[in-house]
Amino acid sequence: MDYRIEKDSLGEVRVPSNHKWGAQTQRSLQNFKIGRSVMPLSVMYGLVEIKRAAAVVNYDLGKLSKEKKEVIVEVSDEILSGKWDQEFPLNIYQTGSGTQSNMNSNEVIAHLCADKGVDIHPNDDVNMSQSSNDTFPTAMHIAARKELNPLIEEIKEWIIVLKELEEKNQGIIKIGRTHLQDATPLTFGQEISGWTSMMEKAKEFIESSAKSLDYLTIGGTAVGTGLNAPEGFDVAMAKEIATHTGLGFETEPNKFYGLTSHSALSFTHGALRALAGDLMKIANDIRWLASGPRAGLGEIDIPENEPGSSIMPGKVNPTQAEALTMVSCQVMGNDTTIQIGSSQGNFELNVYKPVIISNFLESVILLRDGMNSFRIHCLEGIEANESAMTLGVERSLMLVTALSPHIGYEKCAEVAKLAHKESLSLEEAVLQLNYATKDEFKEWVVPENMV
Amino acid sequence: MDYRIEKDSLGEVRVPSNHKWGAQTQRSLQNFKIGRSVMPLSVMYGLVEIKRAAAVVNYDLGKLSKEKKEVIVEVSDEILSGKWDQEFPLNIYQTGSGTQSNMNSNEVIAHLCADKGVDIHPNDDVNMSQSSNDTFPTAMHIAARKELNPLIEEIKEWIIVLKELEEKNQGIIKIGRTHLQDATPLTFGQEISGWTSMMEKAKEFIESSAKSLDYLTIGGTAVGTGLNAPEGFDVAMAKEIATHTGLGFETEPNKFYGLTSHSALSFTHGALRALAGDLMKIANDIRWLASGPRAGLGEIDIPENEPGSSIMPGKVNPTQAEALTMVSCQVMGNDTTIQIGSSQGNFELNVYKPVIISNFLESVILLRDGMNSFRIHCLEGIEANESAMTLGVERSLMLVTALSPHIGYEKCAEVAKLAHKESLSLEEAVLQLNYATKDEFKEWVVPENMV
Amino acid sequence: MDYRIEKDSLGEVRVPSNHKWGAQTQRSLQNFKIGRSVMPLSVMYGLVEIKRAAAVVNYDLGKLSKEKKEVIVEVSDEILSGKWDQEFPLNIYQTGSGTQSNMNSNEVIAHLCADKGVDIHPNDDVNMSQSSNDTFPTAMHIAARKELNPLIEEIKEWIIVLKELEEKNQGIIKIGRTHLQDATPLTFGQEISGWTSMMEKAKEFIESSAKSLDYLTIGGTAVGTGLNAPEGFDVAMAKEIATHTGLGFETEPNKFYGLTSHSALSFTHGALRALAGDLMKIANDIRWLASGPRAGLGEIDIPENEPGSSIMPGKVNPTQAEALTMVSCQVMGNDTTIQIGSSQGNFELNVYKPVIISNFLESVILLRDGMNSFRIHCLEGIEANESAMTLGVERSLMLVTALSPHIGYEKCAEVAKLAHKESLSLEEAVLQLNYATKDEFKEWVVPENMV
Amino acid sequence: MDYRIEKDSLGEVRVPSNHKWGAQTQRSLQNFKIGRSVMPLSVMYGLVEIKRAAAVVNYDLGKLSKEKKEVIVEVSDEILSGKWDQEFPLNIYQTGSGTQSNMNSNEVIAHLCADKGVDIHPNDDVNMSQSSNDTFPTAMHIAARKELNPLIEEIKEWIIVLKELEEKNQGIIKIGRTHLQDATPLTFGQEISGWTSMMEKAKEFIESSAKSLDYLTIGGTAVGTGLNAPEGFDVAMAKEIATHTGLGFETEPNKFYGLTSHSALSFTHGALRALAGDLMKIANDIRWLASGPRAGLGEIDIPENEPGSSIMPGKVNPTQAEALTMVSCQVMGNDTTIQIGSSQGNFELNVYKPVIISNFLESVILLRDGMNSFRIHCLEGIEANESAMTLGVERSLMLVTALSPHIGYEKCAEVAKLAHKESLSLEEAVLQLNYATKDEFKEWVVPENMV
Repeated sequence: MDYRIEKDSLGEVRVPSNHKWGAQTQRSLQNFKIGRSVMPLSVMYGLVEIKRAAAVVNYDLGKLSKEKKEVIVEVSDEILSGKWDQEFPLNIYQTGSGTQSNMNSNEVIAHLCADKGVDIHPNDDVNMSQSSNDTFPTAMHIAARKELNPLIEEIKEWIIVLKELEEKNQGIIKIGRTHLQDATPLTFGQEISGWTSMMEKAKEFIESSAKSLDYLTIGGTAVGTGLNAPEGFDVAMAKEIATHTGLGFETEPNKFYGLTSHSALSFTHGALRALAGDLMKIANDIRWLASGPRAGLGEIDIPENEPGSSIMPGKVNPTQAEALTMVSCQVMGNDTTIQIGSSQGNFELNVYKPVIISNFLESVILLRDGMNSFRIHCLEGIEANESAMTLGVERSLMLVTALSPHIGYEKCAEVAKLAHKESLSLEEAVLQLNYATKDEFKEWVVPENMV
Repeated sequence: MDYRIEKDSLGEVRVPSNHKWGAQTQRSLQNFKIGRSVMPLSVMYGLVEIKRAAAVVNYDLGKLSKEKKEVIVEVSDEILSGKWDQEFPLNIYQTGSGTQSNMNSNEVIAHLCADKGVDIHPNDDVNMSQSSNDTFPTAMHIAARKELNPLIEEIKEWIIVLKELEEKNQGIIKIGRTHLQDATPLTFGQEISGWTSMMEKAKEFIESSAKSLDYLTIGGTAVGTGLNAPEGFDVAMAKEIATHTGLGFETEPNKFYGLTSHSALSFTHGALRALAGDLMKIANDIRWLASGPRAGLGEIDIPENEPGSSIMPGKVNPTQAEALTMVSCQVMGNDTTIQIGSSQGNFELNVYKPVIISNFLESVILLRDGMNSFRIHCLEGIEANESAMTLGVERSLMLVTALSPHIGYEKCAEVAKLAHKESLSLEEAVLQLNYATKDEFKEWVVPENMV
Repeated sequence: MDYRIEKDSLGEVRVPSNHKWGAQTQRSLQNFKIGRSVMPLSVMYGLVEIKRAAAVVNYDLGKLSKEKKEVIVEVSDEILSGKWDQEFPLNIYQTGSGTQSNMNSNEVIAHLCADKGVDIHPNDDVNMSQSSNDTFPTAMHIAARKELNPLIEEIKEWIIVLKELEEKNQGIIKIGRTHLQDATPLTFGQEISGWTSMMEKAKEFIESSAKSLDYLTIGGTAVGTGLNAPEGFDVAMAKEIATHTGLGFETEPNKFYGLTSHSALSFTHGALRALAGDLMKIANDIRWLASGPRAGLGEIDIPENEPGSSIMPGKVNPTQAEALTMVSCQVMGNDTTIQIGSSQGNFELNVYKPVIISNFLESVILLRDGMNSFRIHCLEGIEANESAMTLGVERSLMLVTALSPHIGYEKCAEVAKLAHKESLSLEEAVLQLNYATKDEFKEWVVPENMV
Repeated sequence: MDYRIEKDSLGEVRVPSNHKWGAQTQRSLQNFKIGRSVMPLSVMYGLVEIKRAAAVVNYDLGKLSKEKKEVIVEVSDEILSGKWDQEFPLNIYQTGSGTQSNMNSNEVIAHLCADKGVDIHPNDDVNMSQSSNDTFPTAMHIAARKELNPLIEEIKEWIIVLKELEEKNQGIIKIGRTHLQDATPLTFGQEISGWTSMMEKAKEFIESSAKSLDYLTIGGTAVGTGLNAPEGFDVAMAKEIATHTGLGFETEPNKFYGLTSHSALSFTHGALRALAGDLMKIANDIRWLASGPRAGLGEIDIPENEPGSSIMPGKVNPTQAEALTMVSCQVMGNDTTIQIGSSQGNFELNVYKPVIISNFLESVILLRDGMNSFRIHCLEGIEANESAMTLGVERSLMLVTALSPHIGYEKCAEVAKLAHKESLSLEEAVLQLNYATKDEFKEWVVPENMV
């Protein structure tokens, strides 16, 4: 392989000629060959947003020349446009502060600037007024905030689809189920409205907790004191990043917190895993309602997206529900990783940053994609099997509840038991026990009145 | 044992004469002998709050006589005053909807009313317009909301103590530590301010997420449709409970959600486990700072509360930190239980309610008590070992950072390496390398300027 | 309250007169008021087993007088008989090495010896040749090992019951279900045999992993070097404890491991949570098979143990399944706590011992009791609803698989689709498509041949 | 893009011309765009092992022609040599039984056979006598078993390195630390021996639990009954796969278990996460021992692999320890995912297979690579800082323990306290209190005798 020689404070390193990174990135590549998980690109973009903003702010504060500022901004914008994605190859399992990814961004920017004829030092210029310890947690918040938006949009799409399903199914009465046992009836629209409400709550939980990610630690430098960063750097940086990203960032009031605690990410992931829990419930409901075709509940039909089984022709499986519930499982596991990592800070720094943010972002992306896939390939195509729902209500013993205000709890129990034992309808049982007349029964037991 | 005969729809049961519960409570006692965990009293009180409010509202809506209302209210108030705590013995591992605990409250209230000479039916009167399925999740929210308040108060106490410690230690400069390695200095007050900020955030996270618990599902009855509850019952109930408890409850707009999803508890517990993570970090910092006495960091002293070891006389251990970090571990495990339970709803009901709420409440209580114990027996007594902190700064190589703006990054690295290798002070190394004069060194390297 | 004055190295303490503990126990009671969880009695008994054995071994090795040995043994046996359970009140959230519980056992034994007229010092005599750091982890293994046995017995009971159910149901053909969709048939006995196999594997997993608990750390004293313990103390102790408990204990070859790692408990709990996972699956299967009575699968009946609902008379809920699945959730949460605690050792000691062992033992007891309750109140009473099972098979389209070897995969798919679309029986569809004669169909499609 | 038309039972699909897969693989690619996680290649190889073996066994049992057998074997061997890795692009979040990956292997093999001029049907020939439901769990066990071997080898390497470190450091006495407090001394070799023992136990735990993976479910087909598989197919398949892979596979005695329970993987992962816990402890110990250089414990030096910080020149961070502890966190999160997935089987099938096996394999690979990286870049280069260790022992108060047998526990406490308060050496304190003569002190307090 063609290579060039790069140098850092430890000596020389060979770097592939066709790549833009420098010595420290190369060392990290060689020292951390652990699985195949690469630092998420959105984190790298977050770092580049910081480098770009730092060039602007350092220039404004009189620390960086105009020429240097302009080339760093130009190069950063190129990177953010997706042109240099292959220059960020580092592993998640590296230094726990993300130092090496910070250096990766410094080195690539410096190199690209040099390609444009301006001599830029990765540390003295690109990393000016910064430390890995404040850039990386700042990039974590930027990446998390950015990636959450499409998830929130997907939740909104679900709410739209669910409301349409609610409306479409508002007149269809079906049996309720509690403890998996037949219960009093409700409309299918009402049942769906519970799912809608879960999504509305999830959206609210995510949005309210994600506000905690608006605070950026940049300006704290190595230990939170802001050493080597000019006065006002922190506020100006948050403002510049907010302007450029269009997101509501502001400076974290306590930089010591920002370096050493990731409670905001842990808290926000709590909202994500609450969403995962409800998605598991909804997907389970849907696959159960679609169970059958003949020996299951069979109350709905879901789209056939693929041949279901290699041995059982004609069978169509709820594959989207299976994918989505597996996503939920993964998010719940990620939650454990994040909470453990968050608890392990020492003194001025938590060094579990890469594993925390990569799990966080994986959850966001899996939820977003999993929900999108499920919505398009399953949710939108749900069709109530109205005749099955109606039959379920008619056969049910649980309409007996409607008799309770008229004949009392204990007689109701007697009726239900007799009907169950003798395989009678409710009406037959009531009449046999002489607890009501035929007319009374008709008047009292009206499923439509029970929903 | 003396007993009396009680009856329910399944037949006769023997109940101990000296107890106030009825047939269904007794059956549950016999059928669920699983470990020794009893349904938290705060959940039982939550149910009794509901029974009390239901008597008021059912009377207001013309469904219950004044006499019945008054005796139910009187008895409920007696229970809430703590007089009948021994009447609520049921296990957590029972029906997953908490049905049997709901019946326990119905039966005890009915029995106590009978003792006062009023004939009250546990189902027809005490449980009027209600179902286990809506009372129990309502009681979960009431209990959670009530128990969170003392925790929030304890967090406020921590903030007060931490701010005092900040102030007291604001002038003491110590070495920072990142990656467990010496870093640039900060004041001990600044280090503590990071802890304060963690507590302020935790308070905010808990308060904002706990708002999701303000919504009460009562009025949904068995499946969420409100069958058998009068018009307006839900709103009136939330209002009555809010008035009596002094908490900001309102009716849950979607009762189907309230019966079958516990995402609000899962979300709020996400804030609790984020707090647990930060407590683990703070307690770890404190025990490390107190490590020694001679072969550790030794930067602070903590109170001696007990003889530390049965074999090593004179040794004092950070026992409060150990208790608090064990609490954190427990809360993180409870978090897993809650998230799994929350994901397992089916159709109109989630039947993991008792295990969800008991884990939630255990976390709240352990955090509150653990923090209280740690604050009183450790945090308030922390004393900086100022001479050790000063010595740490003086010996540190990391002040070299202060030279970076003057002699550049790479020369700094050279200085630090030389000092490390030859066990020199920084000043000696700088002079030996001729990178600065003695006067320049004094001017440039001032720890006070670095914090 | 009446009290007496006790003294330790920190000074005087007031101890309730009616209790046998001393100064350090009392201090711990006062310093650790965190929730209400008390150190499991089985751990305290484990400690007392050690004290008893140490008296014997110290005497044998010439370190303790015969009189002292005899009185310590006598008192220990009294405690192990259950006579003094109320003397062990300490909280789980205490010193992370369990020091205070070790002292609790030392103090109570010394006091009881004094009551019998022999002057015994809690440290110098009862704790002779020991340290909290080696006694407590030894007690953890003793307690875990002892408590596991009844769980293993309960698993054996399940295997017996399941094998009876298998045999009883071996001739009943029912529809298989994969992806919740109808699949090819099997006998109900075969389905049950999967559950049996889960229990057989669980038993094997628990037994094989629990062997790792046979190694006792006693003899390592404070840091693992065995300082202050006589030569041969470790081997003699393991032997004496093995003899007295009847369990296969031997000395842990590396005491440093035994003090600072609890991987053996973490590993063994991995077997417990694997059992919890399968119990969740079995309980779910059973409640789904029993779902209905009219709008569910309705393939089995389970015992009616209590009235199911406060509002829906006649409904019988799978309450034992709900309790057991909640137990499973709890065990999975305990698993998280244990794995986090186990990962947090530092140097010569892991100080999460009480939270690790209390969660471990809670899992063991909940599994044992939960399985016992489920077996007696549900499993043993399961009755196949044979007519429903037969009907399911007859209506199923999945018998089409039996045609695959005769008419090929793609024609099979066509047959199944037509039957599904037109609500035909398989036979009708095959005939309509002319893919087989009536006789061929009868010959080829025989559910009995498919199981 | 160039494409060709493929057909399955649902109709036509466009497949890229340059790829070997068929209609069902293509549908899956289009229907499941969820994150970027691809089914691990080792699972795909596991499936191909099965296809290869099935060709052999089906031929032996007279179901497949010699020509077909030979071409399937030839193609399978090509795939297993790594030549067609790019043909297995499917997502983890797909059908929960792995059906689509099974079809992916069927289709690619059939296509490659066609390229060699033999007409092979993906279902009728490649999938002959199989179902996704038995091939996929079989492939899970094959993949898990294969990937575990290099991890076990890496553990053995650690044991070798650790034993060398033990020997090298067996004469160096250092202070012990319990509760992070100074404790009685031990040799550094002894401390390391605790780590060695952890690795030896981990190896044993993994090996013993992994035996549960030796059982292969192949032969159970769709629901466990073995429908459509010839007599003896299961045993012959296990034997053929064992022979070809050189691993000890045999047939799973109960196929119903094998399809619907993954307790064996959950159990074995319990051993992996126990290892993760001990790695976290060891890595923490090492970074703490290496903390400093001047304000930490500074008892060891670790290799400098990269410049540590972008702002603090000269600082070298324990980056390998940070990577390894992040790996541990990830494994603990994967553990949660696996245990939840394992608990969610229904009836004849667990449909969380892909998420279970991908998390399992990720843990194996991260542990293996993380341990390898840590061993090479850190563990092998650990150098004791002997002077620091000696100084720690000399300054320690904890040698007072050595006085305990001579002057008793309480006087020892007094000595230690005086020394601590007045910053005296132990000897000075003893003499000042007149508890021993200078000579007695020298005789009694000998660190070498305490280890």
